[in-house]
Amino acid sequence: MNNIRTIYWEDNTVVMIDQKALPMEERYLTCSRYEEVIAAIRDMTIRGAPAIGIAAAMGIALGALHLEAKDDRAFRNAFNDICDQFAQARPTARNLFWAIEGMKACFETALTGKTGLKKVGSAQIDSSDVYAAIKQALIEEAIGIGNEDIAANRRIGLHGRFFIKNNDRILTHCNAGALATAGYGTALSVIRAACEEGKTVHVYVDETRPVLQGARLTAWELMKESISATLITDNAAGFLMQQGKIDLVIVGADRIAANGDTANKIGTYSLAVLAKEHGIPFYVAAPLSTFDLSIRQGKDIIIEERDGKEVAEFEGRRIAPYGIDVYNPAFDVTPYRYITAMITDAGIARPPFEENIKKLFPQKTAYDI
Amino acid sequence: MNNIRTIYWEDNTVVMIDQKALPMEERYLTCSRYEEVIAAIRDMTIRGAPAIGIAAAMGIALGALHLEAKDDRAFRNAFNDICDQFAQARPTARNLFWAIEGMKACFETALTGKTGLKKVGSAQIDSSDVYAAIKQALIEEAIGIGNEDIAANRRIGLHGRFFIKNNDRILTHCNAGALATAGYGTALSVIRAACEEGKTVHVYVDETRPVLQGARLTAWELMKESISATLITDNAAGFLMQQGKIDLVIVGADRIAANGDTANKIGTYSLAVLAKEHGIPFYVAAPLSTFDLSIRQGKDIIIEERDGKEVAEFEGRRIAPYGIDVYNPAFDVTPYRYITAMITDAGIARPPFEENIKKLFPQKTAYDI
Repeated sequence: MNNIRTIYWEDNTVVMIDQKALPMEERYLTCSRYEEVIAAIRDMTIRGAPAIGIAAAMGIALGALHLEAKDDRAFRNAFNDICDQFAQARPTARNLFWAIEGMKACFETALTGKTGLKKVGSAQIDSSDVYAAIKQALIEEAIGIGNEDIAANRRIGLHGRFFIKNNDRILTHCNAGALATAGYGTALSVIRAACEEGKTVHVYVDETRPVLQGARLTAWELMKESISATLITDNAAGFLMQQGKIDLVIVGADRIAANGDTANKIGTYSLAVLAKEHGIPFYVAAPLSTFDLSIRQGKDIIIEERDGKEVAEFEGRRIAPYGIDVYNPAFDVTPYRYITAMITDAGIARPPFEENIKKLFPQKTAYDI
Repeated sequence: MNNIRTIYWEDNTVVMIDQKALPMEERYLTCSRYEEVIAAIRDMTIRGAPAIGIAAAMGIALGALHLEAKDDRAFRNAFNDICDQFAQARPTARNLFWAIEGMKACFETALTGKTGLKKVGSAQIDSSDVYAAIKQALIEEAIGIGNEDIAANRRIGLHGRFFIKNNDRILTHCNAGALATAGYGTALSVIRAACEEGKTVHVYVDETRPVLQGARLTAWELMKESISATLITDNAAGFLMQQGKIDLVIVGADRIAANGDTANKIGTYSLAVLAKEHGIPFYVAAPLSTFDLSIRQGKDIIIEERDGKEVAEFEGRRIAPYGIDVYNPAFDVTPYRYITAMITDAGIARPPFEENIKKLFPQKTAYDI
């Protein structure tokens, strides 16, 4: 995936690969206004929890860049308004809110400390242009979030590769690849890392209705890297398991509650139930930025319901009869008891998840209290 | 569905509604050559196990009608050749082979008995035109198979309606409706019969990838009859069950083995596993013509694998990257242990299925032996 960049900052614009055009066309969208980034998140030009987070961070930096800051209060209000708009783009992916929190913290640190600042990020403070320095700090923070994501994903792969044996046949759902992140992927990072150490694998790719991220994106990523893959309908996954053709399942995540309940692309829960029925290990791969320890359990996770047209139409062509009611939840929640292990950038969490997830997070020491 | 006829015989042609054009267009295909009927079965212009059986019966009658019969031997050979071509149209639906066997039996009875015949079907035997009388018998047999199917489906509904309570929320997969049969349907017959006796139901319709029979056909049938329905992706079925929104599942069948193992549209097995996990009853509705007592268990049922383009393309537009391997099994097998009861035209079979399915079939008496 070295020649593919999911999202990056360039010349004061946010550039992202248009995931709605893939795999037929490799086209990039350049956003010079933050509203365009919000629209791209909403319409899934960019999707995947970590990638959404990075898009929000860069989008917020882009929005801040063009703010006319009269005074601190006006600057903060305008900045927070931009953040609020991003928070409403999509509700389920934890990384979006994590990134917004990170950008807000960066903003507050820079603004609060501005009188004492000599340097914000790499910019020297010119006292007449302290707001410009804060804007620069936000840009660097957003770029940093993207770079950290790639590093975190590499660690996910390094930690998780041991779950894959030579000649394993792996099922994955949706796209938890480079395109869902700043690069390298989460679930696909584990597969990539196993391949990089010389293992041979075969990946069955669920097409993932309704938006077909499996057929469009995961199939494309795997072909690019010559990783052996077969595309199937979501309906065929159970049949393959029944026939003994799946050795393990690996998926990504959009938000993980404190007890390990995991929101991910609709259909993930069905796979988890099927995996359990067939005694097949079921792994979730996600960076710590996807965990939401403020949410105790999965039923408190907000599940986005998207436009029924995603189901009833295909590229503007109607499939279903006009007037039919459509229910289109974009995610479901897999209860922790179906999950064999979670593969994170900070290591592996196994059951009991509530306890072991906590251990992955940096602990406060006596000095912090 | 009174104004919709799935398939019928008219003026020495076989007329069928084009199920590939639905729901956007109600268009009929008129076949004047048997090869067109085979093509229509293959390309799923007509589909659904019972409907495929009727199409084969009518197609065979159409083929026989145009045979030049020099003598008995040549007539039989040519007739059997047509039957063999139909047998190769699709492998899984039992009703196809059941219909072919019925047509062959009709042919043999008529041909073997021809010298003593005064009448074959409604046609008076003119000794100079005994083959014409046999052809007429085959046409009447095929029409009779269609009529019997409607009657059988009505009985399925009458037997099965008691499984549906007022205000039940029902999940169905693929299309086991009027369009899958000569009329009225199998799974949908049960729902129709419950509605006819005044029960209120809500039907969740799996879209049923890759051919989308749920979105295209079942949604259309239910809307036509004002039965409350919601279209979902196949991926959403487990999520709905988890939320307690499904009271029962009813599906049709393509072939049922002696032990009750049931081949049906790909994805059915996944639903059955999910239903079991949630303690939701799972019913199979099918006429006796779908049962294949010569097959002991499901693993001996041939599963049709169809063209990967059904998955990788949509109406000629490519979805997946060119070159990706696609596996596209059209059916799966649900082991009998996941099935709560089978609803047939001869009554209900409950576990133990092997024993109770046998009881549904007419028993040979001492006089038959």
